[in-house]
Amino acid sequence: MKNDSFEMCMLFDFYGAVLTERQQEVFDLYYNDDLSLAEISEHTDITRQGVRDAILRSKNILSEMEDKLGLVRRFKESTQAMSVIHTMAQELDNINCTRFHSPDLDRRIVEILKLSEEPQ
Amino acid sequence: MKNDSFEMCMLFDFYGAVLTERQQEVFDLYYNDDLSLAEISEHTDITRQGVRDAILRSKNILSEMEDKLGLVRRFKESTQAMSVIHTMAQELDNINCTRFHSPDLDRRIVEILKLSEEPQ
Repeated sequence: MKNDSFEMCMLFDFYGAVLTERQQEVFDLYYNDDLSLAEISEHTDITRQGVRDAILRSKNILSEMEDKLGLVRRFKESTQAMSVIHTMAQELDNINCTRFHSPDLDRRIVEILKLSEEPQ
Repeated sequence: MKNDSFEMCMLFDFYGAVLTERQQEVFDLYYNDDLSLAEISEHTDITRQGVRDAILRSKNILSEMEDKLGLVRRFKESTQAMSVIHTMAQELDNINCTRFHSPDLDRRIVEILKLSEEPQ
């Protein structure tokens, strides 16, 4: 069930606030803290099956949100663009350092490097 | 009521899909097509008061989504960063065109200009 951790953590980061507090707690323990169903059951006083159901329900809610709104996809596209911009700015920086030594170029390149850094 | 058009259109663009089809239709006619309550009432066979209620309800739903998720705010920050990057790249372009005439610089600058263009 945890082979979708990265995707689920992204969805939780974006849409987690629409879940109930209890759902958020269980989801967080499972995906972010990597606890097992049995460990979460012990920690929360919910049966193991109840924990499993809560996680599946939360996954469905988050996936439906993404199907409707597509904001994680939109964010990923923006992040990819930023990553390419950062690489281009690093190359500009190298060219300037080795050939032009221009403070005017440098000032703009540094600004682009700073703004295109992860995390956004 | 329409002095918040820009903000509402942003919220609708991000979260509109959580509204019912009917709510989306009314909201879209009011904010994007700029129809009056009376015109929407005529168009949809809902009373003027019903149209008004539907819009207020939709506004509340969209605002609550943003209060919980804050994705429009996050997107605005990213857009502002892109706008500054675009300005810096235009300045780099000017400097290169007037002083260095370097195809190596140009290639990277053009890529950054392209990726930082609106709309994202």
